[in-house]
Amino acid sequence: MSLQAPDGLGQGGCAAVSGESEAGSANFYHGGALAAARARCPDAPEPWIDLSTGINPVPYPVGSIEPDAWARLPEARDIAALEQAAAEAYRVRDPASVVAVPGAQALIQLAPALTGARRVGVLGFTYAEHARCFRRAGAEVQTVERLSEADRFDAVVVVNPNNPDGRLLSPDDLLAAAARMAARGGLLILDESFIDVLGAGASVAPRMPEAGLLVMRSFGKTYGLAGLRLGFALAPRRLAERIRESFGPWAVSGPAVSIGRRALRDEAWLAKAAERLGRDARRMDALLQALGLELLGGCPLFRLAACEDARAMFDQLCRRGVLARPFAQRPRWLRFGLPAPECASLLEARLGL
Amino acid sequence: MSLQAPDGLGQGGCAAVSGESEAGSANFYHGGALAAARARCPDAPEPWIDLSTGINPVPYPVGSIEPDAWARLPEARDIAALEQAAAEAYRVRDPASVVAVPGAQALIQLAPALTGARRVGVLGFTYAEHARCFRRAGAEVQTVERLSEADRFDAVVVVNPNNPDGRLLSPDDLLAAAARMAARGGLLILDESFIDVLGAGASVAPRMPEAGLLVMRSFGKTYGLAGLRLGFALAPRRLAERIRESFGPWAVSGPAVSIGRRALRDEAWLAKAAERLGRDARRMDALLQALGLELLGGCPLFRLAACEDARAMFDQLCRRGVLARPFAQRPRWLRFGLPAPECASLLEARLGL
Repeated sequence: MSLQAPDGLGQGGCAAVSGESEAGSANFYHGGALAAARARCPDAPEPWIDLSTGINPVPYPVGSIEPDAWARLPEARDIAALEQAAAEAYRVRDPASVVAVPGAQALIQLAPALTGARRVGVLGFTYAEHARCFRRAGAEVQTVERLSEADRFDAVVVVNPNNPDGRLLSPDDLLAAAARMAARGGLLILDESFIDVLGAGASVAPRMPEAGLLVMRSFGKTYGLAGLRLGFALAPRRLAERIRESFGPWAVSGPAVSIGRRALRDEAWLAKAAERLGRDARRMDALLQALGLELLGGCPLFRLAACEDARAMFDQLCRRGVLARPFAQRPRWLRFGLPAPECASLLEARLGL
Repeated sequence: MSLQAPDGLGQGGCAAVSGESEAGSANFYHGGALAAARARCPDAPEPWIDLSTGINPVPYPVGSIEPDAWARLPEARDIAALEQAAAEAYRVRDPASVVAVPGAQALIQLAPALTGARRVGVLGFTYAEHARCFRRAGAEVQTVERLSEADRFDAVVVVNPNNPDGRLLSPDDLLAAAARMAARGGLLILDESFIDVLGAGASVAPRMPEAGLLVMRSFGKTYGLAGLRLGFALAPRRLAERIRESFGPWAVSGPAVSIGRRALRDEAWLAKAAERLGRDARRMDALLQALGLELLGGCPLFRLAACEDARAMFDQLCRRGVLARPFAQRPRWLRFGLPAPECASLLEARLGL
């Protein structure tokens, strides 16, 4: 089926929003562009349904934050307890190899200085920030299609599961690649931002620390608290220590320490979230297929789909107050996050289903 | 007068706490060591009165945080609004020269990579993190006693008002020094973490941006929200842009954006806080003099005092559940933050006044 633009809505306004993804390099289109979309499509129905991010739409309950978490500098022992909670949640053997950082993006920003890598390989079409940050630091960045091509580089970046297509490599293959990198003094940078809800077996974390392997974990995506700015580096001790020193003594906020400790210990919440996300992802797939889109892949936090003219589809969706994620370099692709459960029926109604 | 150790309290336990300041380099003794003090002086009366930090003990009211601030990535326009609020609060002419960062410490950590300075001067005995971060990056760091000595260095760090002695240099002198640095391609790094309550006339901010001058501002100290991790860089546009790029698109948390915007626009709160801090600082001075300490200086957020054996005095205070800040390199000095108003009488009672 195709979407008809509702009567009375302007036609040109939304293209400017999708244009944002074209302005930057590659698929440099960040989540959180809702305000821009709203400003440029003022006639779209409210509330907007923002599917442009891969963030769990059901956040972990923030609850009440103790006043000291706001007022005082986080104490070293509290940060250590947060890292201990992360080590247990991720099943990392050595808590000293876990470093709390203010979001996975902060780690991506740091990676060039941390590694000093000059020749960097990035596996496949993926989250553009890795390449952007290395290029900004003067590194030569190439996209490679296979892990076996890693040998030519000082560092290789793998996003697993991959954003946006959900490609998933096995821990065995990744650890073997890391071992080969380590033997040459190189580093495998493994961005596991979207792996939490795939179960511990999907991650290399239970076998960390491993030489030649730096793993990035995101807290905000799975726990629906992207504004909190919390993530973790998993790394061999010496590298972990350098990351810790680079960020300094109060890298994460008091609320992040407080909420992170609680949330990472709450296995029941995560299990329920994973179940709900799986269910909602299947419902989203059905919806995308009903719209005539071809399913390409994804993971529980987002779905990737294709159609003949993704830009036109993006614009049509905008006019219905639905924000998807386009990719400048992939003109047939759109990525869809999941709606909040209370918006699922509204989304279907907006799309005429 | 001298403090008698209360009967029944151990004698050796607290020395280990003050020993923390000796373990690191220079006066590397961070605030937020209360948990360590409590653990090592378990017999001290509760609640501890923590005077080891220079943080306003009356925080800006956090109020209710909108759910999106937790859940979503901060949008570029919201961060721009936060920077606009900071520009207005600090009286900076060009908002584009203001960059929100996750705490002044994050900026101190970044300074070596940002400046590439190899020879660094630090004015006087001061907050040790500047020298520590530059040394860690391989720079040669020297303490200088006068701004006029700046000519020998790639970068010079001035903390103004100085921590811990409160030494205050005039904006005219600082701007002249920055101009001389700029003429040689150098940079004056001016840490104004404690300047907010001294009035706009004390700061160089109303004359920013200026070539050769990077100013660091802290949000958490004055607003009593150190756990929030928020600070600002004020810098010429090109340097500001590099700082912005170094931290990436979501450097500060959603709650920091939300609370910071509100607080920085609340001139009435700041005026009242400055008045109260001034009053409480005078009360603290009287208390320190009654204890036989000699007043050396300070600023409204902390007082510096001296006695023959600061370490013994520190230990005695710990046994009363009062945590001061010692300095390994200054065996006669102790620094005191201000108690929360509701603790002022308890503090006096603990000290037998």
